[in-house]
Amino acid sequence: MSERTIRLTVAYDGTGLVGWQRQSSGTSVQGLLEDSLARLEGHHVPVVGAGRTDAGVHALAQVASARIARAITPENLRRALNAFLPAAVRVIEIDEAAADFDARRDATAKTYRYRIVSGHTALPFDLRYAWHLRGHVDVGAMSSAARLLEGEHDFAAFRATGSDIVGTVRTIRRSVVVSERERGWFSEAHPPDRRAVAYEVTGSGFLRHMVRNIVGTLVEIGLGRLPVGAMPEVLASRCRGRAGPTAPAEGLFLVHVEYARTGVTFRHEPGAEDA
Amino acid sequence: MSERTIRLTVAYDGTGLVGWQRQSSGTSVQGLLEDSLARLEGHHVPVVGAGRTDAGVHALAQVASARIARAITPENLRRALNAFLPAAVRVIEIDEAAADFDARRDATAKTYRYRIVSGHTALPFDLRYAWHLRGHVDVGAMSSAARLLEGEHDFAAFRATGSDIVGTVRTIRRSVVVSERERGWFSEAHPPDRRAVAYEVTGSGFLRHMVRNIVGTLVEIGLGRLPVGAMPEVLASRCRGRAGPTAPAEGLFLVHVEYARTGVTFRHEPGAEDA
Repeated sequence: MSERTIRLTVAYDGTGLVGWQRQSSGTSVQGLLEDSLARLEGHHVPVVGAGRTDAGVHALAQVASARIARAITPENLRRALNAFLPAAVRVIEIDEAAADFDARRDATAKTYRYRIVSGHTALPFDLRYAWHLRGHVDVGAMSSAARLLEGEHDFAAFRATGSDIVGTVRTIRRSVVVSERERGWFSEAHPPDRRAVAYEVTGSGFLRHMVRNIVGTLVEIGLGRLPVGAMPEVLASRCRGRAGPTAPAEGLFLVHVEYARTGVTFRHEPGAEDA
Repeated sequence: MSERTIRLTVAYDGTGLVGWQRQSSGTSVQGLLEDSLARLEGHHVPVVGAGRTDAGVHALAQVASARIARAITPENLRRALNAFLPAAVRVIEIDEAAADFDARRDATAKTYRYRIVSGHTALPFDLRYAWHLRGHVDVGAMSSAARLLEGEHDFAAFRATGSDIVGTVRTIRRSVVVSERERGWFSEAHPPDRRAVAYEVTGSGFLRHMVRNIVGTLVEIGLGRLPVGAMPEVLASRCRGRAGPTAPAEGLFLVHVEYARTGVTFRHEPGAEDA
């Protein structure tokens, strides 16, 4: 049977998962998808993901590629995979792709969103999907600092602690902090002082922990512990120790992956490491 | 030490809880609050809740009352209780109340919201907080049917199966179906056909399972299995078997409790049973 390449769009709640990448122990999204495809194909099927999200990080629309031989329509394959997968991982779409399509190599940009909720008490409904802060942040100051990261920069200061990656220059197309619109079923939710803001960033590539380290620094600025001007200083220092702490995983979502190729509506990075 | 009465506003994620009321086994919100207060008071402290929410049902702002002797400010008491409680249950506010305040007896009205999400695939982020339907519902038809429940009616057809409660007449002030506004961090979420609607109902009292049985009937109408005109027929029949199935607990939220007394900004029902 001739093999064909498929592109999968996958949403997952990262709570309790070890992340995208298959590990020696724990449940990974890649492992779940590969094991589900193996049940259909009868042998191991490697699955390539656009973004190697870390443990606890969520995805609204991760993109993955795989090669399969079985004669099955994309929609029937999607249903079969969802029948095997836990409810926390859902294949939203499957499309036929060009034979040489590679979800990781071909991605031209990715968008991440990091959610921060503040208020005197953490609502149970926010726990899994945001970083809770007791004190409110200055959205204006965070927004100004976030904008300074747009463009091509050496992001060595925001790499994961202990990372020895060599190339740390990345290009960020958009880096903004926005107040979250009020959500319908939440509008009467207490505490009355609850506020939600989100950091949204789009770039061709990200170093491991880069988004969460940027958020940790933005929050230091938002809480007034660092001035807005600290952001370019941290960036220029190339020193991990100058940036803020790594923001917790539960606030981070891989939102969107972009691809340049015709007929492919999503897209990602060619980098070696990943958020 | 002289006793005083406090009013607690409590939010909880009902997933995995046996409901408000203490049971012989399983974790209940009432049990958690009573056990936490007992640790501070040194003896059992009965806690009365405005709405006896069932297993799996959530609350944005449940109201409860208790009598305590310990000299502690409401804010310090709130923090102490939250330190004892699991993160899924949060005391949002504590206020001093009139000595004879009873969260259940004094409530004049309650508002519930029931969330329904439709789309070809259930998003992981919706699972705990909505009833997922594959097919889309006709919001106009559901809305028309919901409105027919406003006013004083005998809701016997919507009582819990097996219930032998005698008084089944209740007054519903507002009964509407609304489309949920798009939520910020969800806006790019797949599937693209995802839609969310909510049933919102305010009344002086509710029979056990009444809101979920109304929703089960509204969904039959929304999916075209029953005409809008079936709603008054079901109501008039007083027959549980004529109504739709009981909607699952995870979509239901106790949103708000109203009280008539001066200085009390929330309110509830005098009924014997509860949603």
